[in-house]
Amino acid sequence: MTGYSTYVTYDDIYRAQRTIAGRVHRTPVISSTYLSNRIGARLYLKLESYQKTGSFKVRGLLNKLESLTEEQKANGVITFSSGNTAQALAYVASVAKIPAVVAMLTGGDPGKLEATRNYGAEVVLAEPLEIRNVTERLQKERGLTYISPFDDLKVIAGAGTVGLEIMEDVPKADMVLVGIGGGGIVSGVAVAVKSQRPKAKVIGVEPEGAAAMSRSLEASKVVTLDSVNTIADGLAAPFAGEHTLPHVQKFVDEVVIVTDDEIAEALLLVLERCKVLIEPAAASTVAALLTGKVKPAPDSNIVCVISGGNISATKLKTLIN
Amino acid sequence: MTGYSTYVTYDDIYRAQRTIAGRVHRTPVISSTYLSNRIGARLYLKLESYQKTGSFKVRGLLNKLESLTEEQKANGVITFSSGNTAQALAYVASVAKIPAVVAMLTGGDPGKLEATRNYGAEVVLAEPLEIRNVTERLQKERGLTYISPFDDLKVIAGAGTVGLEIMEDVPKADMVLVGIGGGGIVSGVAVAVKSQRPKAKVIGVEPEGAAAMSRSLEASKVVTLDSVNTIADGLAAPFAGEHTLPHVQKFVDEVVIVTDDEIAEALLLVLERCKVLIEPAAASTVAALLTGKVKPAPDSNIVCVISGGNISATKLKTLIN
Repeated sequence: MTGYSTYVTYDDIYRAQRTIAGRVHRTPVISSTYLSNRIGARLYLKLESYQKTGSFKVRGLLNKLESLTEEQKANGVITFSSGNTAQALAYVASVAKIPAVVAMLTGGDPGKLEATRNYGAEVVLAEPLEIRNVTERLQKERGLTYISPFDDLKVIAGAGTVGLEIMEDVPKADMVLVGIGGGGIVSGVAVAVKSQRPKAKVIGVEPEGAAAMSRSLEASKVVTLDSVNTIADGLAAPFAGEHTLPHVQKFVDEVVIVTDDEIAEALLLVLERCKVLIEPAAASTVAALLTGKVKPAPDSNIVCVISGGNISATKLKTLIN
Repeated sequence: MTGYSTYVTYDDIYRAQRTIAGRVHRTPVISSTYLSNRIGARLYLKLESYQKTGSFKVRGLLNKLESLTEEQKANGVITFSSGNTAQALAYVASVAKIPAVVAMLTGGDPGKLEATRNYGAEVVLAEPLEIRNVTERLQKERGLTYISPFDDLKVIAGAGTVGLEIMEDVPKADMVLVGIGGGGIVSGVAVAVKSQRPKAKVIGVEPEGAAAMSRSLEASKVVTLDSVNTIADGLAAPFAGEHTLPHVQKFVDEVVIVTDDEIAEALLLVLERCKVLIEPAAASTVAALLTGKVKPAPDSNIVCVISGGNISATKLKTLIN
């Protein structure tokens, strides 16, 4: 953690905001009368589903790439991902003119593979049990810099810019809900929100089938799950991060767990009522409210971070009864 | 047509804009890099799917209600609809504090029925072959004013405000595509666009299974179809209007026809790529471009009017292969 403080600070996030400004979208916040009535409080959705590449991931990754040395930039970067990080890294690397390699799973979604290639990254295919080794080997052979999708203070600070925008658009927010996969965005958003409005609550939401952060909080150390099983692929990280766990311990008020059925119901309600397509990871935050697992105070201002909108029509179909 | 000119004018639309301002949404225009690349021109979507009640209908209906005499307002209004007009009239009548009755089909979508009631309208159920008679009988018995969903100059002028907003947000629009059911919105938008930018083309789009306007244009008179059959329920009017046909003849450059399959494909592409849920009627405009039935000039600015977003998840599921 050379050169970093242990925790991301407001200043880190503010600097990240200036670093990425103009190269990622300032995404909109919308409100929904219907959903507000359902939960008995004013509900706002921060739509990172409209972000470049369809998720918030570009924010942290671009902030990270811009922190590299000129030599690191020239040599290029690598990550492994079959989800939003793949496309996001490919995109921001092309924006920052840095060569990028993404190790993706053989037999993964062809659409995501194609999108990652179209953004200009070199895609290397690997089997699930080999993908970490392949990434490490390529990193060493080619002198690439490995980029973590969430467990990195620059990545956390970049994701935290979502929180700064929320506080600009909903300055009286009383509660902000954020999904937890590895814990990158919840860490950054919690710092941003608490620094601006200490009394606002920040709630993390995990899917039942990949609740690594809840397990890690219980154990007070990073726990790796034997397996994950959830429709919320964006939250399916099997472990919390060494950086993100302490952030969640310090800045997040509560972590709640929702089921796949609850996530699917929330996703379809947002689709039909708000007319926006969000991915299961994002719908988890709305599910936490609709199920009553999180109960907002009457007339309070609640913000759900809608982390992304990347779900294929084919997968969507499986969620509709 | 007492008190009206034969054609709606720019002034009528401008006045409508002032009449309805603050009581309906100023809807956003978005662009899509992916869709722009697909059609070889800059594509913008005017999202009336985010309008109050999920469709543009509120604009024309509110403009119409505000033109009624105090006596007419006190007595109330009636229409028949099982679609967007039902909810829209119920909503704007409650906004304008005017009693409203909507005749809807027995066995229609329970969600739409409930929504119409929730907006405060009295819903009367009728069989398909009886619905016109029921409407007429109630209108007479109770001294209600019948409101046409499209064939009325005030309604056309209100719908035309969509065109004024397009010209504010995309002042260099070279082509605007609008779906045609009864022809209300295409008439109003065409007048608005041509008055601001005479060289811009306005293209109407009809579904193959309900091409009443194309048939009427061929016959140079209003033609009533024996039956309609299309997934685009918002465009399923079986006849053009006595007011709308002359507007289309005078102000619309071309009317093209798309199939249900083409509409479904466009809807799903917008859903996956732009993350917005639009209804089949709205997707018809995008389909006209994706199929190459309408070929924009390279680098030109094209606007598709996305007339609404009211489609249930259940119906959406039937469109996904």
